[in-house]
Amino acid sequence: MKRDFLAVEDWSRADVESLLSLAARVKRGEIDGGLERKVLAMVFLDPSLRTRTSFETGMFLHGGHAVVLEPGKGSWALETEDGVVMDRDTVEHVTEAARVLGRYADALAVRAFPRGSDWATARQDAILAQFARHCEKPVINLESSRRHPCQELADAFTLREQLGETRGKRFVLTWAWHPKALPSAVPVSAALAAARMGMDVTIAAPPGCDLDPEDVGCIEALASEAGGGSVTVDHDQAAAIEGADAVYAKSWGPVSLYGQPEAQRAWFDQHRTWRLTDGLMRSTRGGRGIAMHCLPVRRNVEIDDAVLDGPQSVVVDEAENRLHVQRALLLTMIGSRR
Amino acid sequence: MKRDFLAVEDWSRADVESLLSLAARVKRGEIDGGLERKVLAMVFLDPSLRTRTSFETGMFLHGGHAVVLEPGKGSWALETEDGVVMDRDTVEHVTEAARVLGRYADALAVRAFPRGSDWATARQDAILAQFARHCEKPVINLESSRRHPCQELADAFTLREQLGETRGKRFVLTWAWHPKALPSAVPVSAALAAARMGMDVTIAAPPGCDLDPEDVGCIEALASEAGGGSVTVDHDQAAAIEGADAVYAKSWGPVSLYGQPEAQRAWFDQHRTWRLTDGLMRSTRGGRGIAMHCLPVRRNVEIDDAVLDGPQSVVVDEAENRLHVQRALLLTMIGSRR
Amino acid sequence: MKRDFLAVEDWSRADVESLLSLAARVKRGEIDGGLERKVLAMVFLDPSLRTRTSFETGMFLHGGHAVVLEPGKGSWALETEDGVVMDRDTVEHVTEAARVLGRYADALAVRAFPRGSDWATARQDAILAQFARHCEKPVINLESSRRHPCQELADAFTLREQLGETRGKRFVLTWAWHPKALPSAVPVSAALAAARMGMDVTIAAPPGCDLDPEDVGCIEALASEAGGGSVTVDHDQAAAIEGADAVYAKSWGPVSLYGQPEAQRAWFDQHRTWRLTDGLMRSTRGGRGIAMHCLPVRRNVEIDDAVLDGPQSVVVDEAENRLHVQRALLLTMIGSRR
Repeated sequence: MKRDFLAVEDWSRADVESLLSLAARVKRGEIDGGLERKVLAMVFLDPSLRTRTSFETGMFLHGGHAVVLEPGKGSWALETEDGVVMDRDTVEHVTEAARVLGRYADALAVRAFPRGSDWATARQDAILAQFARHCEKPVINLESSRRHPCQELADAFTLREQLGETRGKRFVLTWAWHPKALPSAVPVSAALAAARMGMDVTIAAPPGCDLDPEDVGCIEALASEAGGGSVTVDHDQAAAIEGADAVYAKSWGPVSLYGQPEAQRAWFDQHRTWRLTDGLMRSTRGGRGIAMHCLPVRRNVEIDDAVLDGPQSVVVDEAENRLHVQRALLLTMIGSRR
Repeated sequence: MKRDFLAVEDWSRADVESLLSLAARVKRGEIDGGLERKVLAMVFLDPSLRTRTSFETGMFLHGGHAVVLEPGKGSWALETEDGVVMDRDTVEHVTEAARVLGRYADALAVRAFPRGSDWATARQDAILAQFARHCEKPVINLESSRRHPCQELADAFTLREQLGETRGKRFVLTWAWHPKALPSAVPVSAALAAARMGMDVTIAAPPGCDLDPEDVGCIEALASEAGGGSVTVDHDQAAAIEGADAVYAKSWGPVSLYGQPEAQRAWFDQHRTWRLTDGLMRSTRGGRGIAMHCLPVRRNVEIDDAVLDGPQSVVVDEAENRLHVQRALLLTMIGSRR
Repeated sequence: MKRDFLAVEDWSRADVESLLSLAARVKRGEIDGGLERKVLAMVFLDPSLRTRTSFETGMFLHGGHAVVLEPGKGSWALETEDGVVMDRDTVEHVTEAARVLGRYADALAVRAFPRGSDWATARQDAILAQFARHCEKPVINLESSRRHPCQELADAFTLREQLGETRGKRFVLTWAWHPKALPSAVPVSAALAAARMGMDVTIAAPPGCDLDPEDVGCIEALASEAGGGSVTVDHDQAAAIEGADAVYAKSWGPVSLYGQPEAQRAWFDQHRTWRLTDGLMRSTRGGRGIAMHCLPVRRNVEIDDAVLDGPQSVVVDEAENRLHVQRALLLTMIGSRR
């Protein structure tokens, strides 16, 4: 049976550890080839810079090739509803796209941000699930409503690379103001990465901006499984960040206001001051805690220039690590050898 | 002299047979390499999923590379009229694009659906002809006003693969309702494929939706040349499909109403019931006739879910076969060995 | 320290000569490989056909791979101002894009035409400079406000290829009318190419359409450095072209009217007759002077059909030479051997 990569927690702890150690070998330049004659079809329903470039580069470096498709631009607009009479704007059903791409490629990778006005529906990641169900080849999640598992792998790898022993160290996921309400896939995935590493996770966010409860449960389960980890919510940004080993800044919209632009705007307007500043970073452990972000980042909105251009920022290493963990992922999923 | 691939019938029967048997060897995995250091430049004036992915994959699998260009999006808007004073919106003439791409690439592939409001003009496939005339390298038609020859090869291959001996078997091209009037390149090419295979071809369509007479003449010529084949038109969908070995569903607009959106809409509204249903498919020979479509297909509009998701549908195999016949085509046209 | 390729004159005369002679060997097919496992990330803020296809092909032919990114289309809209609070439309700062792509790729290539209404600002090429400053890998200019150095290399190569000994021969850059005011990077680069080859350069343009004075100074310096070259401005197109060895047609907007669309239009309307005609080409030396253009060219607006389709046009060779000089450039900048 094929094995998809839709969420890191779908894979066993041992398999994820294997991925991370293969990624380390890949980064050290120890692995050549392994993807000769392999094709990855990438379907972007939303924009990308790192994801596209790192996957395309990763496939190439090991002898393979990535095809990049953008439905609704160069390729046909996709229908995602099941059983629908397709007499409107969409030209091709995701069912056929998934089945056909599964015949051309060795794996399929899909980016689909949340759609629609209802979180209970959006969180089901229907588009990704349809691709996974109808494609006979393994499917990789390139960021869906609920998860960004490739970012999660890169974050876990970066925490270990930067902090060495992660167990018992303090990871703070801090909310940041942003001009529009963003999805929560990245903050959840970042917290999952830290929890997996056995860190003490603090989610710092204004009251009312908690993450999806089921996702928080998932973070807690992983922390507990890792042994010794913990998850705390804190509404005081400065207090949370003081003494932290790693600070991950990210904006997201309150789940309770999902799909309500005006209510979101009113709520966001109350919290304009949440931003990762140099002062906050100086309050981290020894003034040397690391600053993380998945990128793209809005400068001086989510994180100040002084942080991003300073010595505590590891955001570029984090982005680079996307390449290495994904090479490990591809070698594991479709490689001709391991 | 270079040999283009603009229409299957431009090639000799023997050469087409060679293509199909090379495609069978390709599909069985018997052919490695052959396109090392070869470049295919693809120019898409219209969207694509299968065509782009299958050509890009095909080039890669044999060591080559496909460059994908989308004039008017990432590259310059193309002028197609000869002798024009280019002081309006178009930035580059197809003449220069064809000449220059012929210097960079080993072959050029072009998709250009019908344009303008006049069928007599559109059917001349001027854009494709200009590319072929001005490019010093072979040109491949990726679907023009009149033909979709790569689909035609895939259809011929699929008929043989699915039916074994095709001679004397019954092929029905059935019209289907669609929210907009589509070009007739695919239905003509599908009927040509069946005629070439020596099948008895029935074109089932509402009165007034006959195909271009010259194209029908071409189908008849091919059927007769194949020995034993025939071409019939039938206005009764159910009667036509009963006992068929293969049913190809496809919508197209009446040639007589080409370029007249309102008259088309009125005409289409009268024929909303033409759709390939499970009931129709059960009436095929032994209840086991195959259902074909070039994709993208509008579910429950052209073909019902029950057919597409059932055992009689070969639409995904048909799409897969695009890859194999095109690999054979590329190896034949620009390969360093056969 | 890394060496960018932002302007040809940033490189020593000897290094440019090496590039041109490597390009000649590349064109003769003497150089295989050299870019294995190398990745070029290309960022297009403006459209391209030749640049994209020739770089993508060049990387492939030597074993490498080019990733093509179009910020604002498939990838995130880029912010280019420093220190800005990014609470508007742009999603990612060029700083992060440059840093991250420098981790994935071995070189970065950027196309950014002039932006904004102020020439004094536009001529600073801030976007390109930012990419160069923040990317740890070498950066190649794919056409900026001030320079198109890859075109300049191709033009120099083409002049030598077509004319043999270039020293002392006459090169005329003639202005042409165009429906919109174009940037001056190409005409400046073309004149630089001719000056570098030791030619006598005449810039033929209507009064008021002189190039940026600093750029003209740069052309003069190069002519003088080459020994024997000269630069003249002439407002009489026919007189300038008579007896020329090479005529380069190109439109550009007067620097003094940069960013003033209405004043530009009024000025352009006075000079509608400037166009490279067959009659003008017959007046070149022996009626055999060559006609050049960077392409895309507006037919019968900048250059007449009779010239472009006649024996004196070398525009397609010039475009082909883009491929060869860029292969030499890539081999020199990131090749594993020379």
